[in-house]
Amino acid sequence: MATTTNQPETQARPASPEQKTMQAIVKATAGPGVELREVPVPKIGPADVLVRVEAASVCGTDLHIFNWDPWAQNRINPPLIPGHEFCGFVERVGEDVTSVKPGDFVSAEMHVACGKCVQCRTGQAHICQYVKIIGVDTDGAFAEFVKIPEANIWKLDPELPREWGSLLDPLGNAVHTVLAGEIATKTVAVIGCGPIGLFAIAVAKLCGAALVIAVEVNPYRRALATKMGADIVLDPAADDTLIKMLQATNGIGVDVLLEMSGHQDGIRLGFKALRTGGRASLLGIPSREVTMDLAADVIFKGAIVQGINGRKMYETWYQMEALLKGGKLDLDPVISHHIPLRDFTKAMDLLKSGEASKIILTKF
Amino acid sequence: MATTTNQPETQARPASPEQKTMQAIVKATAGPGVELREVPVPKIGPADVLVRVEAASVCGTDLHIFNWDPWAQNRINPPLIPGHEFCGFVERVGEDVTSVKPGDFVSAEMHVACGKCVQCRTGQAHICQYVKIIGVDTDGAFAEFVKIPEANIWKLDPELPREWGSLLDPLGNAVHTVLAGEIATKTVAVIGCGPIGLFAIAVAKLCGAALVIAVEVNPYRRALATKMGADIVLDPAADDTLIKMLQATNGIGVDVLLEMSGHQDGIRLGFKALRTGGRASLLGIPSREVTMDLAADVIFKGAIVQGINGRKMYETWYQMEALLKGGKLDLDPVISHHIPLRDFTKAMDLLKSGEASKIILTKF
Amino acid sequence: MATTTNQPETQARPASPEQKTMQAIVKATAGPGVELREVPVPKIGPADVLVRVEAASVCGTDLHIFNWDPWAQNRINPPLIPGHEFCGFVERVGEDVTSVKPGDFVSAEMHVACGKCVQCRTGQAHICQYVKIIGVDTDGAFAEFVKIPEANIWKLDPELPREWGSLLDPLGNAVHTVLAGEIATKTVAVIGCGPIGLFAIAVAKLCGAALVIAVEVNPYRRALATKMGADIVLDPAADDTLIKMLQATNGIGVDVLLEMSGHQDGIRLGFKALRTGGRASLLGIPSREVTMDLAADVIFKGAIVQGINGRKMYETWYQMEALLKGGKLDLDPVISHHIPLRDFTKAMDLLKSGEASKIILTKF
Amino acid sequence: MATTTNQPETQARPASPEQKTMQAIVKATAGPGVELREVPVPKIGPADVLVRVEAASVCGTDLHIFNWDPWAQNRINPPLIPGHEFCGFVERVGEDVTSVKPGDFVSAEMHVACGKCVQCRTGQAHICQYVKIIGVDTDGAFAEFVKIPEANIWKLDPELPREWGSLLDPLGNAVHTVLAGEIATKTVAVIGCGPIGLFAIAVAKLCGAALVIAVEVNPYRRALATKMGADIVLDPAADDTLIKMLQATNGIGVDVLLEMSGHQDGIRLGFKALRTGGRASLLGIPSREVTMDLAADVIFKGAIVQGINGRKMYETWYQMEALLKGGKLDLDPVISHHIPLRDFTKAMDLLKSGEASKIILTKF
Repeated sequence: MATTTNQPETQARPASPEQKTMQAIVKATAGPGVELREVPVPKIGPADVLVRVEAASVCGTDLHIFNWDPWAQNRINPPLIPGHEFCGFVERVGEDVTSVKPGDFVSAEMHVACGKCVQCRTGQAHICQYVKIIGVDTDGAFAEFVKIPEANIWKLDPELPREWGSLLDPLGNAVHTVLAGEIATKTVAVIGCGPIGLFAIAVAKLCGAALVIAVEVNPYRRALATKMGADIVLDPAADDTLIKMLQATNGIGVDVLLEMSGHQDGIRLGFKALRTGGRASLLGIPSREVTMDLAADVIFKGAIVQGINGRKMYETWYQMEALLKGGKLDLDPVISHHIPLRDFTKAMDLLKSGEASKIILTKF
Repeated sequence: MATTTNQPETQARPASPEQKTMQAIVKATAGPGVELREVPVPKIGPADVLVRVEAASVCGTDLHIFNWDPWAQNRINPPLIPGHEFCGFVERVGEDVTSVKPGDFVSAEMHVACGKCVQCRTGQAHICQYVKIIGVDTDGAFAEFVKIPEANIWKLDPELPREWGSLLDPLGNAVHTVLAGEIATKTVAVIGCGPIGLFAIAVAKLCGAALVIAVEVNPYRRALATKMGADIVLDPAADDTLIKMLQATNGIGVDVLLEMSGHQDGIRLGFKALRTGGRASLLGIPSREVTMDLAADVIFKGAIVQGINGRKMYETWYQMEALLKGGKLDLDPVISHHIPLRDFTKAMDLLKSGEASKIILTKF
Repeated sequence: MATTTNQPETQARPASPEQKTMQAIVKATAGPGVELREVPVPKIGPADVLVRVEAASVCGTDLHIFNWDPWAQNRINPPLIPGHEFCGFVERVGEDVTSVKPGDFVSAEMHVACGKCVQCRTGQAHICQYVKIIGVDTDGAFAEFVKIPEANIWKLDPELPREWGSLLDPLGNAVHTVLAGEIATKTVAVIGCGPIGLFAIAVAKLCGAALVIAVEVNPYRRALATKMGADIVLDPAADDTLIKMLQATNGIGVDVLLEMSGHQDGIRLGFKALRTGGRASLLGIPSREVTMDLAADVIFKGAIVQGINGRKMYETWYQMEALLKGGKLDLDPVISHHIPLRDFTKAMDLLKSGEASKIILTKF
Repeated sequence: MATTTNQPETQARPASPEQKTMQAIVKATAGPGVELREVPVPKIGPADVLVRVEAASVCGTDLHIFNWDPWAQNRINPPLIPGHEFCGFVERVGEDVTSVKPGDFVSAEMHVACGKCVQCRTGQAHICQYVKIIGVDTDGAFAEFVKIPEANIWKLDPELPREWGSLLDPLGNAVHTVLAGEIATKTVAVIGCGPIGLFAIAVAKLCGAALVIAVEVNPYRRALATKMGADIVLDPAADDTLIKMLQATNGIGVDVLLEMSGHQDGIRLGFKALRTGGRASLLGIPSREVTMDLAADVIFKGAIVQGINGRKMYETWYQMEALLKGGKLDLDPVISHHIPLRDFTKAMDLLKSGEASKIILTKF
């Protein structure tokens, strides 16, 4: 684990019951941009937990909301406080809450599953058909406080670097994808090296992958892929990427494809590089339909293709806890900037520039 | 098991070592059509088995070869005897052969795996990268005799209706697809009701599927789907097919998609009808690239997509043996015609008409 | 589905809010026997459902409680209303309940999982370490009314024969065991033909098992095994049981062992009859330690042994629903007697006689 | 990878067709001990490979054969050359051999599967019912040359330290056991730290195990367990072993039990330490029957118990190749002695002393 000056305090802080309002980033109206506003502190019910946000981080989804793109126009109902990657300290708890207490260092699974559909009742809550996402469908964590149902709270090791605590949502995406099938002794391609792809590289290596090939168009991210432990890092703009991937695997192709780009070309390259009988785990979301050579790339290949969504509740969280406890997983290289929450718009600009990886939003 | 007049003889027939030539259907030149020729009886090596063909059946692949379409032009090297679905009686065996003897009733796995590639050495011989298919890459079964390596021979129950013995190749495709994941208590869509789709309907029902919905454009095949046990049979040309599929599954979608059409529209319909967290097993081969809504139909759905190729060697064969022994699997409805091998061209015409299902080729 | 004169009424009955006390079977003191008592109707909380019991059934556990054997002495805290197999009509619901309403025909999963342990949070609530069983740890269903948390309620098809509704607990044990691995095309041994073993026979056949061999010492139960569809029924007291099991499987042994006896000899026989590479699913609870030939029967055999506990929440319940809807699963042969709840002691006597299978307790 | 002075030569050595006899360790008669004899060099058939032995290693099985214990009396037919762990250089090959050539550095899977039984034909050749083991059932590797069927040969990286090449048989046992289920992020107990247990510790850590607890009575082996990377090393003679195992896993128990001792007490301890819903993989062979608390330790626990035998053909070998290529797996600590083959009896004495781990037998 990387050293950090940001160690948690050793004692729980007292609750502050008197605070009635708080600062928050608010998507106030149906259009681009956000506002910094003073809003009421959320009221909690008997099974809720109020968390004082210590750090949050920015996801591509937040940029969609900021930009007010077609997806956001369809999904978001302003006013909304966005933010679904965070950690903090429990401020107070509802009367039925038993598993955490004020002062505990926590993060949360922000997908709130309905609990009653067939997916929820058969161990697949991560693909609940009626899921509500905190920070997308209800008020989220880009604020001084956020309200979370007890069932969704995840207690963190107080020794964990604080800013790492805000990264468990995307780290969980990576862990879910990597561990969705066998990884030890396997050759692996990670297509797309945004934060989730970068985490996936490190997790795959930690879990015994024999070879990790990272493919990424952005040179800034390629440099990070190397830092995270990729054995081979390729630029798909170079015209021999597929050949190099096959050469690195004795002409057989990779055992495992972790698709993190959501891009037509990345998906195609990944499937062409996949070995016969291999596993393709798809997490990157294409923004439009994708043309596939199903006959050659899936059917004759006898491939297994998995759609990956969110994090398993809560198997993935236990897996993250174990990986972080081991002390060999370093998340620091993925963090490119620290910006106070009040400068949220600046974070959006950085993200658009392509020269940022994970941006940590610190307290107001 | 359906009654049949075609019961096997009770005693093995003597070998006929003196026969030097035989009649065969031969793709003689690089162009459309076939010829009926007198050719030498195949010579067998020490690990080979010579089988006197009792019945053969026609596959879509044979029509491709007959028509000399682009696939055939790429793959086939004339002269070639086609035919990869058959059964017969062992005529003679090489000196190292121990598992069968003259007179035995047999069929065969016609995919001859290399035995040395990583797929072959890890239990995935059915997706061997160096596979040779008898009847495609080497001389096949549309002849009086066919030569088969001992390892590929499958002994049949002498009680099995003889013509059923020629159907194990496509039946095996169906069994491989149906049993590639959980099927008992599941709701199932079979898209495309050619012979393999029809077999899949019956196998799924026998293995405890809760509901089988068959979708097929051809009314002749839709009638057969009902005969094979489909609970609901739909015409995709009707504009409410997807709605009916969802209604039949309480709005949830089918647990299992068995894609047997290889058609863009069928694939799209199948994925739209698939439940979140469902299994899609793809066997039908698209003749061109397919446009998919990967985000909605695979990734957010957390779907598992499996490419299915051939039959597992030899797990699928054991499964077929068990299903046929149980006496509840009736293959007769899928057999539409019996035609002597010499009238092969007539079989091709029937197949093109769309009014045939499985055509059994009987002896010259 | 078997015909039955016991069809449910077509309209929901009105709630009876005025009833304050009810009749119940009560284990009143720490000793053998039970009492018929008038007790208060349970009070329900906001997430609870009060069910008017329509039918209940008797489990071996109830006999342990009645007899006050060492297990009962350790586990049971009188006074207690036993009974964990039942069905009924919803009488009234707490204010937060949304998934059922008065008049609904329901049964329930009586294992109340804690929801907070690692097992519960990773899809294994059926092996929750802090489980409370209604009818064992808290008041159960041998009464006019029983209180159930909403999350544990299972809505039943109003067309289901009413007394079948009380059998889902043991039927679920059987379904969980049978479907814990592949069953279609497999040869199966069911050791022990109490009600769960009998259900397992029928479920295995429905799900495509190639051969089901039932082994049972009691001739009354052997007759029922035949009725439930076992292909071969053996008496283990006969000295060639193992030989017959091997002969019936071509000397290979059974693919799947479903151990329902919990008896040292049954377990030993089952493992000896298990094929190399087979699956052994153990549900029967041995009352003492068991001596095993681990080297020969598990390790060299490469066997997979599964401990089976309860029913998966709620995958098993969905599977039962699908099996019952199909109309091919007949539970009637397993029901040997109908006895009014007030004659509970008579049911205990019958159970001890060995001449009963499942006893349905009807209303007072 | 540890440095070693024992690097392979850079050029293949010429074949020596003229050598007719060789030195060998021979179990000459039905009784204790062995003899050093001059015997004929094995004749090879068309599909065989003759290997000049470079290094061999000693297994507990060899000690059984040497001591002529009851197992050996039942299994071994003298005269026999024992030895089933080795590596060497191909001396010459039969006329049908295509995958290796003289001079290649190789080891071999010494379990020769029949290829025709149901296990062999369904991807489970490692539990073939008719297996013959080279060095147990036919002449083995404690000689200048050994004859191996081509299909069983495994080509080694010429960069691999030569003596490591003789360790793939026991390393494969370890890899097969560790990777028989999920291991990344799991807590693991390794009971018994003979060479296979020691290898298992290192492999589990490399594949992302969160915590490895090693349990071993012998202090010499406990020291090696630490060297191989165990996080916690316990002496089961200390009376709080189980408590320590539970404490180290937050009271939950280990996720994975790797049983390598074959000892009643070790097995019992391992199962008591196994978490509810955990995996127990049993490789150690008990010399007599074992008494188990099946109810508490397997059934209520919902445990998965796997019998592990040999190495998967050849999935385990590919896995070993990948692990060794990664350069992070150090086998050296497990090698305690180097002894010339002619001093075989001395190796037996060392093994009996308990102060040896893996003994490498070097050339005569």
